[in-house]
Amino acid sequence: MKCGANIRLLDCTIRDGGLMNNHLFGDDIVKAVYSACIEAGIDYMEIGYINSRRIFSPDEHGAWKYCREDDIRRIVGENETPLKLSAMADAEKSDYREDILPRDQSVLDMIRVAAYIHQIPLALDMIKDAHDKGYETTINLMAVSIVDDRELDEALELLARSEVGTIYVVDSFGALSSEQTQFLLKKYLSYAEPSGKQVGMHAHNNQQLAFANTIEAIKLKANMLDASIAGLGRGAGNCAMELLVGFLHNPQFHLRPILHCIQQCIEPLQEELKWGFGVPYMLTGLLNQHPYAAIQFNDGDDRGDIVKFFDAINEEEHLATKYLA
Amino acid sequence: MKCGANIRLLDCTIRDGGLMNNHLFGDDIVKAVYSACIEAGIDYMEIGYINSRRIFSPDEHGAWKYCREDDIRRIVGENETPLKLSAMADAEKSDYREDILPRDQSVLDMIRVAAYIHQIPLALDMIKDAHDKGYETTINLMAVSIVDDRELDEALELLARSEVGTIYVVDSFGALSSEQTQFLLKKYLSYAEPSGKQVGMHAHNNQQLAFANTIEAIKLKANMLDASIAGLGRGAGNCAMELLVGFLHNPQFHLRPILHCIQQCIEPLQEELKWGFGVPYMLTGLLNQHPYAAIQFNDGDDRGDIVKFFDAINEEEHLATKYLA
Repeated sequence: MKCGANIRLLDCTIRDGGLMNNHLFGDDIVKAVYSACIEAGIDYMEIGYINSRRIFSPDEHGAWKYCREDDIRRIVGENETPLKLSAMADAEKSDYREDILPRDQSVLDMIRVAAYIHQIPLALDMIKDAHDKGYETTINLMAVSIVDDRELDEALELLARSEVGTIYVVDSFGALSSEQTQFLLKKYLSYAEPSGKQVGMHAHNNQQLAFANTIEAIKLKANMLDASIAGLGRGAGNCAMELLVGFLHNPQFHLRPILHCIQQCIEPLQEELKWGFGVPYMLTGLLNQHPYAAIQFNDGDDRGDIVKFFDAINEEEHLATKYLA
Repeated sequence: MKCGANIRLLDCTIRDGGLMNNHLFGDDIVKAVYSACIEAGIDYMEIGYINSRRIFSPDEHGAWKYCREDDIRRIVGENETPLKLSAMADAEKSDYREDILPRDQSVLDMIRVAAYIHQIPLALDMIKDAHDKGYETTINLMAVSIVDDRELDEALELLARSEVGTIYVVDSFGALSSEQTQFLLKKYLSYAEPSGKQVGMHAHNNQQLAFANTIEAIKLKANMLDASIAGLGRGAGNCAMELLVGFLHNPQFHLRPILHCIQQCIEPLQEELKWGFGVPYMLTGLLNQHPYAAIQFNDGDDRGDIVKFFDAINEEEHLATKYLA
């Protein structure tokens, strides 16, 4: 497929990848990703979270957990480039009213609100706050693979009437098959299109389907697509930007700067951050659960003993209905 | 998707993986894969090639390049199990008339003929030979992503009239998108179904689409599916058996024995064999070419310098029409 002009790519390397190292990236890495995004023609770079310093201690987390204006400007200056910048605010974990500046005081262009289904009322207030401050907005409704279908319809109805610009299908657990992805995309579009909103896709690679499901989303006319360099992201990671750019054959986007960044800055992080596809993440994806157990396992002494992990995860009582043979 | 009773899985771990080590697997590895296939309920195990000792020197290649009856029986005895055994014969590289025994003298159940499009006349003779000797047969028409559409139709017409049991879509270069996969599957089925033949899928993971494309094939009613344990196979490797088994939720298949085999026998080979997704394989896949250049690169001193590989592969004159930006 050679894809049209209205596709927008969002790089979430630092924001999602930071979930593997408490956002303790050196400035050199963040600058390298920023430069690569500009050179590659990427539309948006998400530089981190705007989350609460009360909830996440600055003793344990790097600057990109908070995205204070001074920190961002240390990397991007006035960002006089075509690349737009975004930051994500987590429902119940962000002091968004205080910490998100009016847009005319910030180099940020977009605020993305991340929320679980039960946090939709709060998310609506966060969207309104960001919108009224002058930002583009998205809602990233997380863990959609465990959301009840009727509840999802209710949430989408509310979101369709909100100020939000783009509504994201977010496969937090890397659990979605292509059929489920199609089902959700169609549903989201049925609410978004009549109200003039866009639909986005944020995939995880637990079943090696992040790229394939992102393509499914493109086919169905999602036009805001998350990807990260070398797939860097929580657990099994995200859709790899290099795969997406290579596939699109869109003259706006360039592969070489992405590869340069992988080689110089991202690949060297692999040893420490250990993101990417592996059997433990596959198993949490298959069981439609948060990758937390697999991340713990990969950090522990049993790393590599995938049969032990399989047995442990199967034994947990609450999984009885989802036993893997 | 929960898949029906007529899906047959074929393990090609040793046969395709052997392309990374000249089939120099120890007996312990081959036995472990054999046992895992039996315990996991896999339908077929392809234990290697029946290729020519004149063309491939036994000084450089292991037993699974030739699959002599004594070697196979050393692993499987009389194979008194439900697991069927297959071997692949390469067109122009196999002394098939002599080396393939009559079925009643062999523990093999199936012969798979691998051929490029220009070798179809020879392949038809090989199919007839194997069929007349009493075997199930498949034709694995390689590198279909570079085959002219009209030539393909002619080949499929001939194959539909042949003795072959299953006609395989083979994405040797890992170049196919899901749309191309769908197009080919439909075409193959349009020839195969009226003549009572089955269609199979053999994918490579250059663009992290091997599993996704195999699922596409299942949806379109391909029912013989190649996969390998931990994806072990040439270059970027194959569709991973653990992904496929996990996805199918078919009570015939069991995941745990596959994971056990990964942990005990396959994962330890990674350091030496270096198969699996990586940027060089992605690039050969995107350019729709044999992974040879990427394999060479990964074996050489420049391993890791993916920008250099990108530049080199882009500079080659014959690729001028497929320049990657």
